[in-house]
Amino acid sequence: MDGRDWGKFLLPYQQAVEELKIKFKSLRKELKARDEYAPIEFVTGRVKRISSILEKARRLNVPLDRIETGIEDIAGIRIMCQFVDDIRKVAEMIRQRKDMMLVYEKDYVTNYKDSGYRSHHLIVEYPVQTSLGSMPVLAEIQIRTLAMNFWATIEHSLNYKYKEQLPPHVRERLRAAAEAASLLDTEMSSIRQEIVDAQQEFEESAGT
Amino acid sequence: MDGRDWGKFLLPYQQAVEELKIKFKSLRKELKARDEYAPIEFVTGRVKRISSILEKARRLNVPLDRIETGIEDIAGIRIMCQFVDDIRKVAEMIRQRKDMMLVYEKDYVTNYKDSGYRSHHLIVEYPVQTSLGSMPVLAEIQIRTLAMNFWATIEHSLNYKYKEQLPPHVRERLRAAAEAASLLDTEMSSIRQEIVDAQQEFEESAGT
Amino acid sequence: MDGRDWGKFLLPYQQAVEELKIKFKSLRKELKARDEYAPIEFVTGRVKRISSILEKARRLNVPLDRIETGIEDIAGIRIMCQFVDDIRKVAEMIRQRKDMMLVYEKDYVTNYKDSGYRSHHLIVEYPVQTSLGSMPVLAEIQIRTLAMNFWATIEHSLNYKYKEQLPPHVRERLRAAAEAASLLDTEMSSIRQEIVDAQQEFEESAGT
Amino acid sequence: MDGRDWGKFLLPYQQAVEELKIKFKSLRKELKARDEYAPIEFVTGRVKRISSILEKARRLNVPLDRIETGIEDIAGIRIMCQFVDDIRKVAEMIRQRKDMMLVYEKDYVTNYKDSGYRSHHLIVEYPVQTSLGSMPVLAEIQIRTLAMNFWATIEHSLNYKYKEQLPPHVRERLRAAAEAASLLDTEMSSIRQEIVDAQQEFEESAGT
Repeated sequence: MDGRDWGKFLLPYQQAVEELKIKFKSLRKELKARDEYAPIEFVTGRVKRISSILEKARRLNVPLDRIETGIEDIAGIRIMCQFVDDIRKVAEMIRQRKDMMLVYEKDYVTNYKDSGYRSHHLIVEYPVQTSLGSMPVLAEIQIRTLAMNFWATIEHSLNYKYKEQLPPHVRERLRAAAEAASLLDTEMSSIRQEIVDAQQEFEESAGT
Repeated sequence: MDGRDWGKFLLPYQQAVEELKIKFKSLRKELKARDEYAPIEFVTGRVKRISSILEKARRLNVPLDRIETGIEDIAGIRIMCQFVDDIRKVAEMIRQRKDMMLVYEKDYVTNYKDSGYRSHHLIVEYPVQTSLGSMPVLAEIQIRTLAMNFWATIEHSLNYKYKEQLPPHVRERLRAAAEAASLLDTEMSSIRQEIVDAQQEFEESAGT
Repeated sequence: MDGRDWGKFLLPYQQAVEELKIKFKSLRKELKARDEYAPIEFVTGRVKRISSILEKARRLNVPLDRIETGIEDIAGIRIMCQFVDDIRKVAEMIRQRKDMMLVYEKDYVTNYKDSGYRSHHLIVEYPVQTSLGSMPVLAEIQIRTLAMNFWATIEHSLNYKYKEQLPPHVRERLRAAAEAASLLDTEMSSIRQEIVDAQQEFEESAGT
Repeated sequence: MDGRDWGKFLLPYQQAVEELKIKFKSLRKELKARDEYAPIEFVTGRVKRISSILEKARRLNVPLDRIETGIEDIAGIRIMCQFVDDIRKVAEMIRQRKDMMLVYEKDYVTNYKDSGYRSHHLIVEYPVQTSLGSMPVLAEIQIRTLAMNFWATIEHSLNYKYKEQLPPHVRERLRAAAEAASLLDTEMSSIRQEIVDAQQEFEESAGT
């Protein structure tokens, strides 16, 4: 490679992923303990594999000495929600936090990709304390419903198998599946309103 | 209650849930490490809350001194799969294991409930080693796709809110959501075949 | 009590403990991954039980509405080291961190208590991000050798059994055990120098 | 090497370690929940590294196709106790279990090694359920006090540094440290009796 010790390079990213996972899991626990609605269903995280970092650097023409700023998803957090509306709530909670700084957002929920991909992405800067001092790292936080996540998992494994060259009929079926996932989310959303309405009624009747 | 120490009563069930979770998570890891298809996506487990045990005992007319055999889901394991076809593979793997004994099965995938509920249930007997000696406990293993699980989670929370008395229009919408979830599973299944076919072709061409 | 909801009161402290545990475990991992000496052997943490908080408040005459500042160890982290010299290294690392602020220190290693208790304590202020906003909490970080920890664990359980009123002959034996623990630490320290010396020699000979 | 896929070879051992760790941790939790004395302080486990397996095979003249039976500590569990007397209690509990079979024992507590090493070892056969069927694996369970463990950890790292060729003065100091550790255990044991006696008195006085 370029003589870089990749194992050591990834250390602050691993730290960031561990800390961010704990923080968003705590947020869920905290809201539940406060008897409030928790828009977070579960949280996962991963550090990008070195081979994938190098491939992405090549594809995006990022010089190897600019990887820290040029590739934004070396540290990746995924937050799964039950309902589409929960996504913007979680995004807003992240914007309010004092322990990370929002760099920019990509709303692939409203503007979904041609492939059918839907998710809300936030790129944040998060300071980790290493044995060499404080160090800011970029992390990508993806927020999606369970159905969006389900679809994205399948798409990822198909892209991996077909090396990003999906045959047309597979691409077609994936798009149909994305529609089905979206339909499921719409049906679920209609029930969400049901829950909120029911609670609203209850509180109003209790208020008189 | 009946003077029973419920905290101690639940101990072997907690042990069973911990051990079974580890065992099915290991199965997934093992298959991946063998470069084989792992039909398990993720595994969760829980011990039924005492209040729910008592309510179920009342509903099913199970005397309190027969709870160990009369209520089969005090220890509960849930295995999530990507595809509908994975469900019967996992079920078959469980039937083959020597560390638990199948008591009976309920196939709510083929014969789904009126509500729209789909899942494959296996009731197994699992021996735990306690400080008082070996002790068999019943556990319910539910196997379902991610979409089935998604729907079931929502249904559960609605039933909880409406105390099992869903208003007709909610019930209606839930049924529609179940259809959407099932459609998503069907679309996904069509892609599964795609993956398997592609691999098959590859192996055949490599074989000649 | 005073109408306070203790479950909710403890939430930020639980969050602080979870985050701090992850951070100090990461520090150990990071140093090992850098092939550097890691002065941290393992890390534990706990939130003080409500009954213990109330008892301590009574004993120290802390009014219940001043507990957040009057009781400093509601969030508690314990860092275990192999060698006595490691303790001050860990303390120095904590002083350097930007994600927590040192309030004050108590050096019970140099100035050990009459009972035989040895440990280095740092009281830090740590900001947690809750759903209600950012919130600073106090946490006590105890740094000790394995032998000091071993002894302290036993002393704690004896004090618990005897309700802080140890009979003279027990107190006597505990003090003798503290001496034995300290002797073990001294012997171990002499070997630590051995390791460091050996490495030093090696590097010097390599340098010529 | 010999064409063996070591990653796959180690899979059942990894499974055994995971399951055994959970089982002994459960035993501790269970005893505490029953308000009984738990002779287990904490539990760790590891799978031997491939390089160490090969080195040991060479040293012991174990042919590579006999490693499964010739090397007994590929799967290793370590159980730490507070008091020396707890060691034989844990050993007895293991002998009684129905989920593993004792192969043989080595009592290095009574008959400690020249180096000063003290621990009780049990070699057990434990059946793991793999995707290829049931498979018995050997595991070594080491039971020791915290002080014995502390000393053994240091000895291990010194042996590693000096490649098992400890200089005489280091060996000497290690032996002195072993004596100090043993003295600490003796002091602690005298307090254990204190605790048991106190409880005994209490129960006798309550009995009249």
